[in-house]
Amino acid sequence: MRAYKDLSKEELLCLKAELEKSYEEAKEKGLKLDMSRGKPSKAQLDMGMGIMDVLNSDSDMMAEGGVDVRNYGGLDGITEAKKLMGDLIDVKPENVIVCNNASLTIMYDMVSRSITHGVQGSTPWCRLDKVKFLCPVPGYDRHFAITEHFSIEMINIPMTPDGPDMDLIEQLVSADESIKGIWCVPKYSNPQGYTYSDETVKRFANLKTAAADFRIYWDNAYVVHHLYDDRQDTLLNILEECEKAGNPDLVFEFCSTSKISFAGGGISALASSKGNLDWVRKFLTIQSIGSDKINQLRHVRYFKDMNGIKTHMQKHANLLRGKFEAVEDVLQRELSGLGIGQWTNPNGGYFISMDVLPGCAKDIVAKCKEAGMVLTGAGATYPYGKDPEDRNIRIAPTFPTPEEMAAATDLLVLCVKLVSVDRFLLNKQAAPLAASQHRAVM
Amino acid sequence: MRAYKDLSKEELLCLKAELEKSYEEAKEKGLKLDMSRGKPSKAQLDMGMGIMDVLNSDSDMMAEGGVDVRNYGGLDGITEAKKLMGDLIDVKPENVIVCNNASLTIMYDMVSRSITHGVQGSTPWCRLDKVKFLCPVPGYDRHFAITEHFSIEMINIPMTPDGPDMDLIEQLVSADESIKGIWCVPKYSNPQGYTYSDETVKRFANLKTAAADFRIYWDNAYVVHHLYDDRQDTLLNILEECEKAGNPDLVFEFCSTSKISFAGGGISALASSKGNLDWVRKFLTIQSIGSDKINQLRHVRYFKDMNGIKTHMQKHANLLRGKFEAVEDVLQRELSGLGIGQWTNPNGGYFISMDVLPGCAKDIVAKCKEAGMVLTGAGATYPYGKDPEDRNIRIAPTFPTPEEMAAATDLLVLCVKLVSVDRFLLNKQAAPLAASQHRAVM
Repeated sequence: MRAYKDLSKEELLCLKAELEKSYEEAKEKGLKLDMSRGKPSKAQLDMGMGIMDVLNSDSDMMAEGGVDVRNYGGLDGITEAKKLMGDLIDVKPENVIVCNNASLTIMYDMVSRSITHGVQGSTPWCRLDKVKFLCPVPGYDRHFAITEHFSIEMINIPMTPDGPDMDLIEQLVSADESIKGIWCVPKYSNPQGYTYSDETVKRFANLKTAAADFRIYWDNAYVVHHLYDDRQDTLLNILEECEKAGNPDLVFEFCSTSKISFAGGGISALASSKGNLDWVRKFLTIQSIGSDKINQLRHVRYFKDMNGIKTHMQKHANLLRGKFEAVEDVLQRELSGLGIGQWTNPNGGYFISMDVLPGCAKDIVAKCKEAGMVLTGAGATYPYGKDPEDRNIRIAPTFPTPEEMAAATDLLVLCVKLVSVDRFLLNKQAAPLAASQHRAVM
Repeated sequence: MRAYKDLSKEELLCLKAELEKSYEEAKEKGLKLDMSRGKPSKAQLDMGMGIMDVLNSDSDMMAEGGVDVRNYGGLDGITEAKKLMGDLIDVKPENVIVCNNASLTIMYDMVSRSITHGVQGSTPWCRLDKVKFLCPVPGYDRHFAITEHFSIEMINIPMTPDGPDMDLIEQLVSADESIKGIWCVPKYSNPQGYTYSDETVKRFANLKTAAADFRIYWDNAYVVHHLYDDRQDTLLNILEECEKAGNPDLVFEFCSTSKISFAGGGISALASSKGNLDWVRKFLTIQSIGSDKINQLRHVRYFKDMNGIKTHMQKHANLLRGKFEAVEDVLQRELSGLGIGQWTNPNGGYFISMDVLPGCAKDIVAKCKEAGMVLTGAGATYPYGKDPEDRNIRIAPTFPTPEEMAAATDLLVLCVKLVSVDRFLLNKQAAPLAASQHRAVM
């Protein structure tokens, strides 16, 4: 395949005519495809239905220590659920608080508490002129939505396959006391599927921050969400590293079973130092009568331990792998060598990240929509919904079938080609793709 | 029985000696009793175990409109759960948002949102010099804990059997823009078991408030929690009355199944005007991926409709009635005519409220504790834990058995007598009980 930049005007015009014909044909198919959100598919949800059987009217409803899971109390979760969620992220149960069905809500609450009450006795952020968060980009739109909601200024930090740019982070947090946090998805990152290197984790744990109330929001959402048996990323334990570095309070770690059991009805957890958790427990006594302990018990009785979770995750992988491969196959076959797009081939997680020519992402997403396919809005992976180069597209392959994913990716590459050809025609001098740090397959 | 005030010093001394002997005997029994919290008993929880059977691995997990309850989405609850919770409080489903297991958390969130973002566009309360809430007293300690947590100044409003003192409320809210809310438990109030009269509800609905962002926090926690078939309170529909009065946005109403299904694993709801709910939904898109819809479906499939809930509540009443009666019998037998205590005989709810001689509540609670019985801390039913007259004691009869309740009340009346005798001895001129508005049985 010849790169588009090497094509003559005539060749480009000829190609454009072909592509437009294909696009019109695609539109006529009246497709209805959705690659927008990282939702589990029905088959994945069906697979977990055994969870519904573990508790019935004859069940013993007592948790460890004689806690009746049906009643009030047990503010920070039942002991066996702390163990299970702790094992999931390799953390001791005493460093875990188990919560309801959404780790997003825990994150929201942590920011909200910091705004109204400060972090462990620091000045409440609502009394400060300026509060800033660092945001590795592209990243998770719902993280950015929380900080935007609280009028926290967001600063973009470029991502690399080893994690965010640590030189820049170290420089910023050491100099600016108004920087209070950073959003991280350290394993199989959303949207790239990158996993932070050991060095990155160690540098995080050793951060010297100007603000004593700076915290790393470590959203370990995909900790066991591998796609392959033989290609699995590993992530260093941030809590251990922080402890070693003498920074035990530096990190809030989040995880959930949303993409293990049920996206809408799982359990979630916060892991952190005793100091941080004691601080959180003070809020919980005011805010809550305890999370749903029945659902905690249900999860513990079903999965039993990490082996149970690992076995279950292999079944998820079996359902997901083909979808990721369907996308990657089409991208590889159709875009390789054209110099108009690069993408990630993650070993796990829920997304593939694609970078197109600068200034093209919005137009491509719009073209896809016109032909019946919804993608995550262009720009959504950046704070304020603004991708400064307008080039990142997040692909979420989990919900449709592999066949739908292949059809969807066919349409996507068609739109990438069409918009790219137009760019080259408009400006034969359009800059080639900048050297990228992506695990690119061109 | 002769009133203590009419006893001579010699008679009081003689009585004191008797009571002290009984108290020493009681202590020797090594009792372990808890009348402190309004928790359902194990028998009540066992009675609802059928809920565990309605969903199993073969169940259809689709809610109305094709919503898969296991997946993300459905931010404000599934339609059928909105209907069920709406029916519970006689509100249309479109005026309901269904949430997770704790209505307390909804209340906390409503206050927290108002602090950080203001109410429907008003100035965020964190930017105001002063924010105040009205607190009918005695009232629910967890309400007061939320407002105290956010440094909201609390103003005591005396309760009557018809509800809070509306003259005072109308006067205060019309004159003071810094008053932003009021805590209400309008039916079977905590702790008295009073139900607001129709006139009270209408006056609430017609409040003219200086603050446009004033809201009534209407915690309808005990809406169907009757103790008797033939003695049931009724409460006017506040949302309807607000609508009629042209004040549709004035009220946030809360309810839950915590004391219907399971205290730790029920579902809860917020009911309000479309304007208020639209405002709340904006927060939910940031804060949540939706509440646990599986548990919503479980509740709907089990109870089916209001008839199902009513039948279930009769079973609760059958378990609770004897406990309330055991307390009331002992109080009536032992304290009637002594002029040292008065109490309520509620038709529903979870508590009995008792007023003792001014300045005696703390000492009585301490004496009970010394003999092995935990009561709700004296003062807990008032903002800041400060009962200005030190005379209110909350009795929570639901958790122990009727026999334990009788034993506990025996000890309580003994301690009431003992502390009261001491008061009369210390000061033969001690003021008699002030004329009270309680449904008193002397």
